[in-house]
Amino acid sequence: MTDRITATYRITGNEPAAVAEAIRVEQTIEFPHDLAPEWIQREVVGRVEEISGDQVTISYDPRVAGSELTQLLNVLWGNVSLFPGVRIVDLALPESITALFDGPRYGIEGLRAHFGAATRPLITTALKPMGTSSADFAETARTLALAGFDIIKDDHSLANQPWSTWRERVELVSKAVAEANAITGGKSAYAPSLNLPADQVLNAAKSAAELGAGALLILPGITGFDSMRVIAEESELPIMAHPSMLGSYTISPNEGIAHGILFSTLMRLAGADITIFPNFGGRFSFSERECLEIRDAAIAPLGSIAPIWISPGGGMSLERIPEMIDFYGKDTSLLIGGALHRGSLRENADRMAHLVKAY
Amino acid sequence: MTDRITATYRITGNEPAAVAEAIRVEQTIEFPHDLAPEWIQREVVGRVEEISGDQVTISYDPRVAGSELTQLLNVLWGNVSLFPGVRIVDLALPESITALFDGPRYGIEGLRAHFGAATRPLITTALKPMGTSSADFAETARTLALAGFDIIKDDHSLANQPWSTWRERVELVSKAVAEANAITGGKSAYAPSLNLPADQVLNAAKSAAELGAGALLILPGITGFDSMRVIAEESELPIMAHPSMLGSYTISPNEGIAHGILFSTLMRLAGADITIFPNFGGRFSFSERECLEIRDAAIAPLGSIAPIWISPGGGMSLERIPEMIDFYGKDTSLLIGGALHRGSLRENADRMAHLVKAY
Repeated sequence: MTDRITATYRITGNEPAAVAEAIRVEQTIEFPHDLAPEWIQREVVGRVEEISGDQVTISYDPRVAGSELTQLLNVLWGNVSLFPGVRIVDLALPESITALFDGPRYGIEGLRAHFGAATRPLITTALKPMGTSSADFAETARTLALAGFDIIKDDHSLANQPWSTWRERVELVSKAVAEANAITGGKSAYAPSLNLPADQVLNAAKSAAELGAGALLILPGITGFDSMRVIAEESELPIMAHPSMLGSYTISPNEGIAHGILFSTLMRLAGADITIFPNFGGRFSFSERECLEIRDAAIAPLGSIAPIWISPGGGMSLERIPEMIDFYGKDTSLLIGGALHRGSLRENADRMAHLVKAY
Repeated sequence: MTDRITATYRITGNEPAAVAEAIRVEQTIEFPHDLAPEWIQREVVGRVEEISGDQVTISYDPRVAGSELTQLLNVLWGNVSLFPGVRIVDLALPESITALFDGPRYGIEGLRAHFGAATRPLITTALKPMGTSSADFAETARTLALAGFDIIKDDHSLANQPWSTWRERVELVSKAVAEANAITGGKSAYAPSLNLPADQVLNAAKSAAELGAGALLILPGITGFDSMRVIAEESELPIMAHPSMLGSYTISPNEGIAHGILFSTLMRLAGADITIFPNFGGRFSFSERECLEIRDAAIAPLGSIAPIWISPGGGMSLERIPEMIDFYGKDTSLLIGGALHRGSLRENADRMAHLVKAY
């Protein structure tokens, strides 16, 4: 395998060869090509490897990525994000790049051991709705932990609202989940959201662990992919990544970053153990094919970086659980939120846990 | 003026009223509306204020933003980013929100005083191309500073490549610019890029100041808008914001965030003094109308947050300077990079400085 970063872009509305020439310069020297010294043209500028139909494959010397995720993102998608009709559809990273990153601390196998879920999907949910008090969230979490949920995360919009502030919520919910675990002997984990001011995020990850949280929810579209990487290196808690604000990178068919690269490859490089994305047929717009692309990239070889859990959510119902396991396989973190509250939360939570464990 | 956050979304391909209903719930409680307590439906869920043609205006209680930029971004664009055919085209923030943020430390008036540029545009450029050694960048910077450039920034792709590492570059270039300033009596500022690992960014801002840098270049599309806000609060150096990776938020006509909101309103909230974006007619795709939308939002009233400089760049030439000043006005940070290197850098740099100062 070549020791180069290889990206394939699909070109719409312009001549692929001309756009390929523009990209290989734009993503590296951003300078009139003819004015660059010959060795820079040869070694630093990207190289057009193939043009096939509307797809162009460009390779980059790994040195342009400067050993850092921040600059790797910049090489792959920095200025090209401003080009109309360009979408990055495939990405191959050499060992010299993947070896720079620890990736997820747990991944699929790690969380199977952690939660004692040898073969089954994970059972996850979110605390909702905003406006609820921390004390009431804690009681909801207690019910869910007693039912045997693996991860009970904050709704991604819970931050420091007056109805429930971050520290109070983390304290009360962690305590309730710990009490439930003491009864069940289980390992339910509460995952507070770290969508907090940039200068508080890392300390909040530490505080969350001290207060008894069992996992973390991170929004890399706001917090930054590289901040998630740092948290994954420093915190021992499993990380769920939420797609907030990331839709713009993939929703336009002709521009942006392919679903698998965005929601799986980049998430793995940046240390997520579980990648949340909108399931087909829910409130959002992803197709079955796009969802499978995410699934496939979550488990594809990526140097020594572990495969990760996929967590399709967004308007899911209990009735869809068997269909979802059939479709995605068992390495799936099933995420059902609001639907658990229609009727008895306790009964629905028990039913979901039984459905998953019995399937 | 209402004390609510008011966002107008343009809807394509779906019934606007139905999408408005979805958005007001999705961006707040993300929960079946009928199951939420009545007071939460009334106070926490967004309110549809107006539906006019394909545009829907939704207002949010400022409490849902939780006093933080991170959650404000999440309310405005978090999950809606995953909806096809939704673009946020207008945004009005109440005083209770704008007062949370310091905004730019300098803004237009501050940098006019700082650089002794009472009425003229700012004269700015970038160190290129990647592959150049730090010593050679320093000599280029010396030439540009002697010619009277206000800001000489790193190309946004310069990070920690083997040809020029960050610390070495900041040391050598800062020193060369200081020596030139000692000769000219000017205040040329070198702006190193802070596209660095998340756990190094804040320290790098401090190191840059200590090493003699006169400004900072930040890529909020990678570093995060809120990290820029923190740097703006903590560092006394002026901040240029670069659009790397942000194109995906605005390039699709029917989705994303309008140019003015993305490149000006959010940049101002997050503390940028200068917002760089691709000029019409250059290597990129923005239209004249979109560029003017950025200009207008850069100077529009925004609580007590200062107006900021616009910096249209991307394949600009000396010949276009008069046209650009006529088009954008004098509160423009003219950014010409590669074109200065065609022929004699010294002569081109002098010519650009004279053109701007004489215009």
